[in-house]
Amino acid sequence: MRFDEAYSGNIFIGSQQNFEEAEVVLYGMPMDWTVSYRPGSRFGPTRIREVSIGLEEYSAYLDRELHEVSVYDAGDIPLPFGNAPKSLDVIEAYVDEILGHGKMPLGIGGEHLVSWPVMKAVAKKYPDLAIIHMDAHTDLRVDYEGEPLSHSTPIRKIAEHIGPKNVYSFGIRSGMKEEFKWAKENGMHISKFEVLEPLKEILPTLAGRPVYVTIDIDVLDPAHAPGTGTVDCGGITSRELLASIHAISRSDVQVVGADLVEVAPIYDASEQTANTASKLIREMILGYTMTTKK
Amino acid sequence: MRFDEAYSGNIFIGSQQNFEEAEVVLYGMPMDWTVSYRPGSRFGPTRIREVSIGLEEYSAYLDRELHEVSVYDAGDIPLPFGNAPKSLDVIEAYVDEILGHGKMPLGIGGEHLVSWPVMKAVAKKYPDLAIIHMDAHTDLRVDYEGEPLSHSTPIRKIAEHIGPKNVYSFGIRSGMKEEFKWAKENGMHISKFEVLEPLKEILPTLAGRPVYVTIDIDVLDPAHAPGTGTVDCGGITSRELLASIHAISRSDVQVVGADLVEVAPIYDASEQTANTASKLIREMILGYTMTTKK
Amino acid sequence: MRFDEAYSGNIFIGSQQNFEEAEVVLYGMPMDWTVSYRPGSRFGPTRIREVSIGLEEYSAYLDRELHEVSVYDAGDIPLPFGNAPKSLDVIEAYVDEILGHGKMPLGIGGEHLVSWPVMKAVAKKYPDLAIIHMDAHTDLRVDYEGEPLSHSTPIRKIAEHIGPKNVYSFGIRSGMKEEFKWAKENGMHISKFEVLEPLKEILPTLAGRPVYVTIDIDVLDPAHAPGTGTVDCGGITSRELLASIHAISRSDVQVVGADLVEVAPIYDASEQTANTASKLIREMILGYTMTTKK
Amino acid sequence: MRFDEAYSGNIFIGSQQNFEEAEVVLYGMPMDWTVSYRPGSRFGPTRIREVSIGLEEYSAYLDRELHEVSVYDAGDIPLPFGNAPKSLDVIEAYVDEILGHGKMPLGIGGEHLVSWPVMKAVAKKYPDLAIIHMDAHTDLRVDYEGEPLSHSTPIRKIAEHIGPKNVYSFGIRSGMKEEFKWAKENGMHISKFEVLEPLKEILPTLAGRPVYVTIDIDVLDPAHAPGTGTVDCGGITSRELLASIHAISRSDVQVVGADLVEVAPIYDASEQTANTASKLIREMILGYTMTTKK
Amino acid sequence: MRFDEAYSGNIFIGSQQNFEEAEVVLYGMPMDWTVSYRPGSRFGPTRIREVSIGLEEYSAYLDRELHEVSVYDAGDIPLPFGNAPKSLDVIEAYVDEILGHGKMPLGIGGEHLVSWPVMKAVAKKYPDLAIIHMDAHTDLRVDYEGEPLSHSTPIRKIAEHIGPKNVYSFGIRSGMKEEFKWAKENGMHISKFEVLEPLKEILPTLAGRPVYVTIDIDVLDPAHAPGTGTVDCGGITSRELLASIHAISRSDVQVVGADLVEVAPIYDASEQTANTASKLIREMILGYTMTTKK
Amino acid sequence: MRFDEAYSGNIFIGSQQNFEEAEVVLYGMPMDWTVSYRPGSRFGPTRIREVSIGLEEYSAYLDRELHEVSVYDAGDIPLPFGNAPKSLDVIEAYVDEILGHGKMPLGIGGEHLVSWPVMKAVAKKYPDLAIIHMDAHTDLRVDYEGEPLSHSTPIRKIAEHIGPKNVYSFGIRSGMKEEFKWAKENGMHISKFEVLEPLKEILPTLAGRPVYVTIDIDVLDPAHAPGTGTVDCGGITSRELLASIHAISRSDVQVVGADLVEVAPIYDASEQTANTASKLIREMILGYTMTTKK
Repeated sequence: MRFDEAYSGNIFIGSQQNFEEAEVVLYGMPMDWTVSYRPGSRFGPTRIREVSIGLEEYSAYLDRELHEVSVYDAGDIPLPFGNAPKSLDVIEAYVDEILGHGKMPLGIGGEHLVSWPVMKAVAKKYPDLAIIHMDAHTDLRVDYEGEPLSHSTPIRKIAEHIGPKNVYSFGIRSGMKEEFKWAKENGMHISKFEVLEPLKEILPTLAGRPVYVTIDIDVLDPAHAPGTGTVDCGGITSRELLASIHAISRSDVQVVGADLVEVAPIYDASEQTANTASKLIREMILGYTMTTKK
Repeated sequence: MRFDEAYSGNIFIGSQQNFEEAEVVLYGMPMDWTVSYRPGSRFGPTRIREVSIGLEEYSAYLDRELHEVSVYDAGDIPLPFGNAPKSLDVIEAYVDEILGHGKMPLGIGGEHLVSWPVMKAVAKKYPDLAIIHMDAHTDLRVDYEGEPLSHSTPIRKIAEHIGPKNVYSFGIRSGMKEEFKWAKENGMHISKFEVLEPLKEILPTLAGRPVYVTIDIDVLDPAHAPGTGTVDCGGITSRELLASIHAISRSDVQVVGADLVEVAPIYDASEQTANTASKLIREMILGYTMTTKK
Repeated sequence: MRFDEAYSGNIFIGSQQNFEEAEVVLYGMPMDWTVSYRPGSRFGPTRIREVSIGLEEYSAYLDRELHEVSVYDAGDIPLPFGNAPKSLDVIEAYVDEILGHGKMPLGIGGEHLVSWPVMKAVAKKYPDLAIIHMDAHTDLRVDYEGEPLSHSTPIRKIAEHIGPKNVYSFGIRSGMKEEFKWAKENGMHISKFEVLEPLKEILPTLAGRPVYVTIDIDVLDPAHAPGTGTVDCGGITSRELLASIHAISRSDVQVVGADLVEVAPIYDASEQTANTASKLIREMILGYTMTTKK
Repeated sequence: MRFDEAYSGNIFIGSQQNFEEAEVVLYGMPMDWTVSYRPGSRFGPTRIREVSIGLEEYSAYLDRELHEVSVYDAGDIPLPFGNAPKSLDVIEAYVDEILGHGKMPLGIGGEHLVSWPVMKAVAKKYPDLAIIHMDAHTDLRVDYEGEPLSHSTPIRKIAEHIGPKNVYSFGIRSGMKEEFKWAKENGMHISKFEVLEPLKEILPTLAGRPVYVTIDIDVLDPAHAPGTGTVDCGGITSRELLASIHAISRSDVQVVGADLVEVAPIYDASEQTANTASKLIREMILGYTMTTKK
Repeated sequence: MRFDEAYSGNIFIGSQQNFEEAEVVLYGMPMDWTVSYRPGSRFGPTRIREVSIGLEEYSAYLDRELHEVSVYDAGDIPLPFGNAPKSLDVIEAYVDEILGHGKMPLGIGGEHLVSWPVMKAVAKKYPDLAIIHMDAHTDLRVDYEGEPLSHSTPIRKIAEHIGPKNVYSFGIRSGMKEEFKWAKENGMHISKFEVLEPLKEILPTLAGRPVYVTIDIDVLDPAHAPGTGTVDCGGITSRELLASIHAISRSDVQVVGADLVEVAPIYDASEQTANTASKLIREMILGYTMTTKK
Repeated sequence: MRFDEAYSGNIFIGSQQNFEEAEVVLYGMPMDWTVSYRPGSRFGPTRIREVSIGLEEYSAYLDRELHEVSVYDAGDIPLPFGNAPKSLDVIEAYVDEILGHGKMPLGIGGEHLVSWPVMKAVAKKYPDLAIIHMDAHTDLRVDYEGEPLSHSTPIRKIAEHIGPKNVYSFGIRSGMKEEFKWAKENGMHISKFEVLEPLKEILPTLAGRPVYVTIDIDVLDPAHAPGTGTVDCGGITSRELLASIHAISRSDVQVVGADLVEVAPIYDASEQTANTASKLIREMILGYTMTTKK
């Protein structure tokens, strides 16, 4: 019983609160105000942390334990409700600072638009950046019903920012005809429906490069992730997604940042989705830090 | 079997689709992007219409039937996701047009901020307007964490616009100390906790005046309306709310517009809240049009 | 550990399995095929029995315990799915037999139409029968969209069968204008909205008469019974319903049969409605048998 | 803002309301009164339309967009609650009329029994008809507990009507021993457990023939479709079902009608099942009309 | 953006983390292993803290704000799963220490048995202690099916420990006949069904005495608190419970400790119960500290 | 209509109530008091029986019907709430008696700790016993936070009791590093992630030996079994689990007892998990009894 130290409320299992020593900084981006269909991913980060207590600290996949990595759980970034432009500015500055301290940013969404300022910040530090993107949706729209800041646009923005040839999308099964056409015409890689097999082919071509990995939980089939805004059947299994994270972890790329977005707990009373996200975060922490040790 | 006429999908029971003949125009405002706590009221209008098929067209309270009033269900106003300023502009122009045709606007939210442009439009037409406001919350903030367009501000905006003395709030049980203070200092009426009894005292003082009635479903106790963003215990029963609508209907005010906001169906698997909202809308249609016949 | 006797699976708390000695016969009528809105009451009887294990056997209201009454739980009557006429015939014959053995039938629905054959059977044995009916709905339709066998018609049928003057409805808040008119013109009693107070006035006028009590759970406000087909706000509290059962129990009528219908568990994940129904059944057993002892 | 045209409430994405020009007629059959286990599929059509707004109009599988096909959403067929014989007559006459206009009927259930009158109507027009049936259950009973009109009987009825050799069932994993025996003895095709591989073998043998495709959503594993009356584990994935629809679409059969039945939204709070059904309907529209163009 | 200080995860709104300065210590007791019916209250404290962000810091009832009281949220006491005796020892030692520092313990359950060691600890410090107990159940059993450590026994234990005459129960509507009898014979106060009115009569008789207030959330009607283990209809409203807390706060007793137990979030998907509990905790903090200032 | 025989409430489909003639005894072990994360499996046995009415009695996999096996459903073993040591003693004595009568025990959990006394009882009768264990978790802890009786320990206990070389675990994907190490060092078999393929390799090596099969439902992916305490993504499909049960059934081992544990219905509103468990139990009854006939 120690009343003399701060109560560590709801932090991710195995993380700690010493920023200086941390290798990885975990942070939430509780924003969902531009989603066109079902909102609720603002509560993703909190719930994912909460259910992490049901996890083991050891990964039987990677034979690594959380205590081998030092992770600082920074909590959620405070964002102004309903103000997308300002929220994105806050996120970018926040990640700039994490990167400035030489730490790996590991973000939890929130809607997918939050990945845009993060990727922009990472690209500032790593000019040779490549993006690995796993998602059900292309997210390549220029705007959504006139709004350029929409959850349907982040991949388009980063593709235009660092060049479409540096962006690799996997598992895509939904989008407008125009989006697929734009990707094709501009040399952006899109693997439709599948993730693991095409990823294994791409990874060697990225050897040595800094890579940011952004995962929209809806790349999973709704059977595996019902708790998300836009459920879209025909997706991959959680086994394939775990194996894909492990494939990246064991490859020769250098993961310099990552996120997992679009977990919306309210649509999943069994909390299957949050628990799955929580395990995915653990594997990302354990696996992605393996790439930086080489 | 008639394939030669348009299928009237999901419209409110007893409404029809001839705008010209309509006395009342029913419309949805599916916006929830500035809420600070739980989003989801964007799906309120659709679900309220959908469950209206479980209603009778006759009110045993008012001894009136829906066919005695002609209501045009205009569907939902298309709003730009995540863009609050533009959404409010669209709503104001929309209601201007309804009023221009001499019809009563009856809106379904959406978050409470949608009432602000509606009330502004109504105030243009009726300079002597009074507002009757039933809610758990004061909604009198100047801004919410810096954002002036927030679901916590609509009553402050209209109070400053038409004068605080013309705004009457009932059932209020939550707010900041400053909000209550501002109301008191500026002569705005706030009845804490209770609705029906203080309303009965106020109504005669408003006799003959045009009145806009805005109801946040969370004025009901969560027992009666669990499906809303911010559940706040200690509220009134649906009986008291029905009786309050009937009290207005039988009073000498002239209702020139009304709304019901903040129904968020996802938080209520039993659909109790949507069904209740649906019955409230029926009573508003039948009751408020009684005031315009006098 | 006794393997030599049958396992009594899911029976109502405090009931037993010796038919001969039973004073009351409890039985389920798992039928919901004529409901116009939300089906599911077929699972009412099973769930109500299941949750009864959460009850005490003692009533702090009546100061009686279940072991003071002998109740036989006969399980559910097997009914042909989707065939309303045949189902009603099966129910009537079943209740005839219960009455033939001199026992009190206590039925659990199922939709309200199941009460019609029960009341018909009871009326055969007790020509002077009066009906006490608590419900949100009149249930006085001649037919529903052409179907004479509908959950909207049972009270009309019994009223025409034994004479409208012998039927007393309480708590009614929904119906067609024609239904209220028919009741008024034919001398049938309808108390709108309220139950306890008007019931207390009626009971003395029924002193000494055999009475059948039929309760539709939707007489309760949806706050108290969300798990039913047609939730209709503005209803009474469970306190008022308990007090009404107790008022009957302590009156001078002779309860000769009763039912509780329209619990549809799927619409209430908290199982509040089934638990409430279960307590109401306990109070009916303990209370109604007090009237037959006099 | 246009108040001069009817509000098209809840219609399937990409459909329109001009019957004359339509190639495909989409209609709901909201009947569930003969189901033996869990009812609720009556709300399937409405919810499937409602969630279709979350879909893209483009299929990345077929490289086709909804605007390439003209679909008329006719809404739900009004059916008499609880009266199975009359409901089936109404459906048959309705589909006769669609076929009389030379359009493809695409129905949404409701329980599986609704497919029987549809298939009967289609067989009148196409004497050489073959049935492709995907389901967890044989649905080959003569009756269910004595009732010949039951959700367990439609395939038996059409098999006896057009000859068992013309019926091909896939994915079957549940039924009575007698049903499998009857199929075997009468030359009806049943592929147990699997759909895609056996279908690919059968399709060439049906080249040139008119085919009606009836899909019970429970052919999917409950992981992929929890929102149905009878969840039965061991089923196929939504990927396999999508691929099966695509295999038919690219084959040399001529699809002359189709349906998707047994979506019961209440059992799936995440709305995964309705969203999946909605995507399946889009693929059916885009794919099956490819077969009629050849 | 400050990475140099600990992230304050999930703490109750308005609380802080400096133990030394705190007047009130808030702590969770996440134990539910002796409940006989529905478990799940172990997640009560976490969820109640989580939803507290939806609260205002100002009470419109008491005209006080949280910053006027210093509260230390100590998090949950770590308890050994499934071991009741050890858990109770840990709790007692924990509360001893809080009291040793001269602070008011305010506990969140967890099942009601957790109140027993707390009350024992408080009684050590305040020999003249009286207990105010609000509950649906007597909780006066000697044991439950042979187990003396059960959620049905805490009030019996404290009554025997400090003398039954010092225990006052309110709102009781369920229990065994023997429990009511024991209370009566031993001079313990039980107000059946009602809380506020009898409480107002008792409070003056306790003037000047140290009082511990233990509230089982199921004293509320299930309409107001569906998320609890044993829902028992016929309870009080949240209004009455709020008013009761306020009555104590304004009385002349001295509240020296308090708890709120039995919130089980899983049974309430709308989170109404946790939100209500959260508001009750705020009112307890603001109100009970008023009694210690006198 | 037969009132002269006991109503067989909630028993598993196809089972009966004559203990003497039974080959298999089915019993529930409704205990969940040592689980560290989400409780609720105490309601597993009841719900699994309840939903079994949706099953066919015929297995299309094994071509066998339930009437070919005589099963006695003994109901749930009464266990003292919250007292783990006593509960385990009661279970062991209970299973001793079943085995003494020469019948096969088939248990339904309840948490996994209940398997420990069952396996101990079975090992007394069959000294050459081997254990087949399918689970997401190793369950090889010595204790859990100091408690030796925990749901994390049963496999360690039986492994130490009969020798680690006689225990075969499949599908394991979570555990502490130490647990995997202990298994390896002591010659216990663990197949990580996979079940069917490694099982097929092991089975021939166990030919002729008595085998107890214990299945934790969480060996399934959460997509297939969301209703369990600890959902852990990356698991197997229900198809693979069915095939694994069938592989055992057709092998040359002799199944002398079995269980299925950890179904917690409250976390799965669609009741998919209970329905799946119910089908698994049917296949176990039909399949495992095939091994004893040889």
